[in-house]
Amino acid sequence: MERRSLLRETIEHIDIRSFDARPIIDAYGKMAFQARNLHKVSHIFNKMLHDESCSIILTLAGSLLSAGLKGVVADMIRYNMVDVVVSTGAIIVDQDFFEALGYRHYRGDSIVDDHRLRELHIDRIYDTYIDEDELRECDLAVAKIADGLPKRSYSSREFIKEMGAFVQKHYPEGNSVILEAYQNDIPIFVPAFSDSSAGFGLIFHQQRNPDLHVAIDSVRDLRELTEIKAASQQTGIFMIGGGVPKNFAQDVVVAADILGNEQRMHKYAVQITVADERDGGLSGSTLREACSWGKVDTAFEQMVWSEATLVLPLIISDAYHRGSWKGRSRKRHQKLFSA
Amino acid sequence: MERRSLLRETIEHIDIRSFDARPIIDAYGKMAFQARNLHKVSHIFNKMLHDESCSIILTLAGSLLSAGLKGVVADMIRYNMVDVVVSTGAIIVDQDFFEALGYRHYRGDSIVDDHRLRELHIDRIYDTYIDEDELRECDLAVAKIADGLPKRSYSSREFIKEMGAFVQKHYPEGNSVILEAYQNDIPIFVPAFSDSSAGFGLIFHQQRNPDLHVAIDSVRDLRELTEIKAASQQTGIFMIGGGVPKNFAQDVVVAADILGNEQRMHKYAVQITVADERDGGLSGSTLREACSWGKVDTAFEQMVWSEATLVLPLIISDAYHRGSWKGRSRKRHQKLFSA
Amino acid sequence: MERRSLLRETIEHIDIRSFDARPIIDAYGKMAFQARNLHKVSHIFNKMLHDESCSIILTLAGSLLSAGLKGVVADMIRYNMVDVVVSTGAIIVDQDFFEALGYRHYRGDSIVDDHRLRELHIDRIYDTYIDEDELRECDLAVAKIADGLPKRSYSSREFIKEMGAFVQKHYPEGNSVILEAYQNDIPIFVPAFSDSSAGFGLIFHQQRNPDLHVAIDSVRDLRELTEIKAASQQTGIFMIGGGVPKNFAQDVVVAADILGNEQRMHKYAVQITVADERDGGLSGSTLREACSWGKVDTAFEQMVWSEATLVLPLIISDAYHRGSWKGRSRKRHQKLFSA
Amino acid sequence: MERRSLLRETIEHIDIRSFDARPIIDAYGKMAFQARNLHKVSHIFNKMLHDESCSIILTLAGSLLSAGLKGVVADMIRYNMVDVVVSTGAIIVDQDFFEALGYRHYRGDSIVDDHRLRELHIDRIYDTYIDEDELRECDLAVAKIADGLPKRSYSSREFIKEMGAFVQKHYPEGNSVILEAYQNDIPIFVPAFSDSSAGFGLIFHQQRNPDLHVAIDSVRDLRELTEIKAASQQTGIFMIGGGVPKNFAQDVVVAADILGNEQRMHKYAVQITVADERDGGLSGSTLREACSWGKVDTAFEQMVWSEATLVLPLIISDAYHRGSWKGRSRKRHQKLFSA
Repeated sequence: MERRSLLRETIEHIDIRSFDARPIIDAYGKMAFQARNLHKVSHIFNKMLHDESCSIILTLAGSLLSAGLKGVVADMIRYNMVDVVVSTGAIIVDQDFFEALGYRHYRGDSIVDDHRLRELHIDRIYDTYIDEDELRECDLAVAKIADGLPKRSYSSREFIKEMGAFVQKHYPEGNSVILEAYQNDIPIFVPAFSDSSAGFGLIFHQQRNPDLHVAIDSVRDLRELTEIKAASQQTGIFMIGGGVPKNFAQDVVVAADILGNEQRMHKYAVQITVADERDGGLSGSTLREACSWGKVDTAFEQMVWSEATLVLPLIISDAYHRGSWKGRSRKRHQKLFSA
Repeated sequence: MERRSLLRETIEHIDIRSFDARPIIDAYGKMAFQARNLHKVSHIFNKMLHDESCSIILTLAGSLLSAGLKGVVADMIRYNMVDVVVSTGAIIVDQDFFEALGYRHYRGDSIVDDHRLRELHIDRIYDTYIDEDELRECDLAVAKIADGLPKRSYSSREFIKEMGAFVQKHYPEGNSVILEAYQNDIPIFVPAFSDSSAGFGLIFHQQRNPDLHVAIDSVRDLRELTEIKAASQQTGIFMIGGGVPKNFAQDVVVAADILGNEQRMHKYAVQITVADERDGGLSGSTLREACSWGKVDTAFEQMVWSEATLVLPLIISDAYHRGSWKGRSRKRHQKLFSA
Repeated sequence: MERRSLLRETIEHIDIRSFDARPIIDAYGKMAFQARNLHKVSHIFNKMLHDESCSIILTLAGSLLSAGLKGVVADMIRYNMVDVVVSTGAIIVDQDFFEALGYRHYRGDSIVDDHRLRELHIDRIYDTYIDEDELRECDLAVAKIADGLPKRSYSSREFIKEMGAFVQKHYPEGNSVILEAYQNDIPIFVPAFSDSSAGFGLIFHQQRNPDLHVAIDSVRDLRELTEIKAASQQTGIFMIGGGVPKNFAQDVVVAADILGNEQRMHKYAVQITVADERDGGLSGSTLREACSWGKVDTAFEQMVWSEATLVLPLIISDAYHRGSWKGRSRKRHQKLFSA
Repeated sequence: MERRSLLRETIEHIDIRSFDARPIIDAYGKMAFQARNLHKVSHIFNKMLHDESCSIILTLAGSLLSAGLKGVVADMIRYNMVDVVVSTGAIIVDQDFFEALGYRHYRGDSIVDDHRLRELHIDRIYDTYIDEDELRECDLAVAKIADGLPKRSYSSREFIKEMGAFVQKHYPEGNSVILEAYQNDIPIFVPAFSDSSAGFGLIFHQQRNPDLHVAIDSVRDLRELTEIKAASQQTGIFMIGGGVPKNFAQDVVVAADILGNEQRMHKYAVQITVADERDGGLSGSTLREACSWGKVDTAFEQMVWSEATLVLPLIISDAYHRGSWKGRSRKRHQKLFSA
């Protein structure tokens, strides 16, 4: 009863086609502070979309899709604004794959008795609720996919592609990042794949198949992303939050160098973040600092200091309506790999 | 030469009538995190506007008007969305009155050689430049106003009203918060009035008139705002940033109690802020905490964590287009005072 | 009963003589990030103390004294580490004068039912409780002091000096910033004086003395601080938090210029703050930015990013034990003013 | 020449035995805000050390060891204050293993021309410099270790144990977290192992050994950490920063549940962080929120809001001098695994 009343109002994903943010972004460019930074992020993103030689890497960290941004990210793929995704496991598995299975996130409260939620099997992300029993189903769906695969080492990309095939087969109607990426040959990398619901599913799989089982070789992830970098003339990175995805996407420049390919820094780089450079952590480190590492060129870089739900819909609505994506050819980097 | 090239691109003030933020605010209400908080701030603000019994107090802190928000605040007054303003001196004098005199702010860079700017008489606010010589003219205009007034103690409100009369007379064509407030009988309070360009003008005035001169009695500010509170059935506060204006507008509830009036907490309270409650400071203190002080009721309160330029235009564009202000009668609290 | 149980554990003020922070500060200087910034703040502060030509201005914002830092600030005055104080009203009146009257602050909880506190007349500052009835007594003590004074305009400094005389007379045994400043001729300025318990006391006084009463002329504050600046060879500012005190103490350089005195920037400047420059506000604005305004020289400036309770005791314990204050002559700037 | 002048002042690691933080921590417990939170973190940590049934998991994120905290973390292992480490790759490989090879970090400047650093092969972390050519040597040392191992899948823990053996053999004299852990049978997990200098070394290894090579199965990491959890009566987590290590260490409770073991939440949990819960991300999520997930009990949990270099030395100096570690038996969880 009470449980049902807490899991009632679903999170609805914003549709960036339903409003036109262009006049807002234009006006913000003539203001100051973060409004102007937001404009510059948009400006550089549109520049990336115009630059036919540029492969765009989107990095995702933070609870973005559970917060109503799933449609935005799916649309970025649908409308050819992104060529590679690097993400945390929570976003791709616990949030996107979870919803692809038909489950939902719920609007909750950030000040609440967490002991009571515990008893009710409700998990909380700030002001969002999740049915914990449904999350267990999500874990098991991953285990089931692993059970059906040849027993060998996979990159996270390969495994996520299989998850895409699973969704395509069983839940083809949904609006899902995994599905959209699968259909458009967009590779998705999750460098810390087992740190998610996928990890739970895969240890379950491995425990029941102790000798021969699916393993996830994270080294392979780095090799594959490096191959994509090598196969691209130019690259740009669109970072939402920081963490491992930000670091991993930047590292690939160094990795290419080590593997003997000519080194080209990321030509474009934008980031939405609330992290601060003053703690010395990577999440808040400036893109200028990344230049010292030879990772990011500073000609076209900009950070905007904001929680992502406030500004990502504006940036993508602006890009959608300006339409630079229309003439862009699909990169289909997934096809680089036989598997 | 170089100086001119740095003072070339002016800050342009965003026009909240030129786009309709309603679909964005609506969609944000079904998401999570700060998007949902932003929606709730908008929702409560529209509720305030609907509530005919409610006087709305706007508090301003941070370099808001130099950043391109002057038009938004002026429109809030123009379209009857605010009945009292409590502000820092920098906003009302250094930024609004300064522009009312015909001067402008300029788009600059946040990473720059400040020694060079010093030599060029250019003052910097993050990514914004100001011509320091023009700022000196602004100081002197304040001194000139003081020179022309009867020599006695004034509240900041009284003096700012005189600044409004001065602008009305000499610069009636501009888009100015002071002018708009003057024309609509909106009182403006600046509790730390001398901590601004006005302070520079007034010490200049006092130095040349050592015996008889204009003084600013800040106690009178508190008394007058308390009288307005007492004359209002209900009150709501819309806080942008924290600082003295936030504290002062909340204190008035306690002040009314001390002066023997029946105590009514602020019925509505919203705040845009990036401050954090974890330092124990007032700017980031929660509105729930203010309830313990008997200042703010918690039925209708919400904070949104964002730098103001990103979200204020959305909130006010939403309120403008929903039109609750249209049926609202002008409170004209300025008329409470003979002076 | 319940009320008594909530107001039981008092805040105790840390004694910086009871431990020696020098080895910590020394070691931090060879590390990175905020540890190294903390070391540099200490280093510059010790340099200020060594520089006999330098008057040191301490600015205070945030709920510092209620948090257990009263002893630290009182010791800074006692051991001749500060020559002028610029503060918020809450710190000097609601916290210091309040405790000088014999009242105390109490350790509380930051997650609590604020409605219940409201009913119990307990005010909350993050994790600290105050007896609201005692705070009313504090307001009335201010009114009583005003009642006993000649009826004219005062600077906040003059009035606070009278508060010091009151404490000296009635509560000479306490450990109080106001008392220590009174005894050592240290002027204290509160530019937004009425935005505090003093404001409540003074409106009470003015209401009962409508024609002839004490008024607080904030313009006079700026004039007087400017005179002190002019009378000092060099100046250094030690800023805890930002807000009006930070701005006011920096403004004085510009004010001196306007009054025709030769302009000398603050030679030394350090700040403890958690504010961020990215919102364009003054509290987080860099000291390099202040250089563009001609306010702060950049040769000796440093900010450390920390909540103040964590680091101020370390800085002052270090300075106390290094002993540079021992040979320093008292500036006694209070004596500049006849009143 | 210029390069040498920039790489001159080395970062020195603070020695927590060289000062006694107990009086500071004691005094902070009677104050408010973050001082009191710091005290509570210390208090709970000492409680963990006293509780013989408790295995302590240390999680590390942010550039901690390059900032001068290597000695603190090594001492935590040396003095038996930690039983398991979960870390980012940068900390364990780029920083600790890097210094174990004899290289050093250098004190630099946070405001600098990053293009010039790029040309000089100097990498920057906020105010710290690294010789990029030395970092390449570190990558290659990892490749060399991999070259010498049987070609199969490893958990990151297994591989890091081999790195410990390598350091023990070739660089036994250094002060290193990897070495100290190796000698005391402390397992170290790096869930995103390839997102580091180790990744560069391993892709180099795999490229030259395309058919048979070392792979890192991150699923195995989760299984192994879950086994440790199952073998422990109680667990406590000491989190420095957030990111994947925080999430991974908390996930293990859920993982144990899925593998059919009785579920026990982490009994103790403390975190040092500057992240904010208001962005909904995991790094700043409250430990109360973690209770809703069934991961952390709330009886003994506390967060302190500070950059880590400021407070970690105080916490560990306090614990070292209180001496609860002296009677504690070594858990030696490494021995759970044959490999």
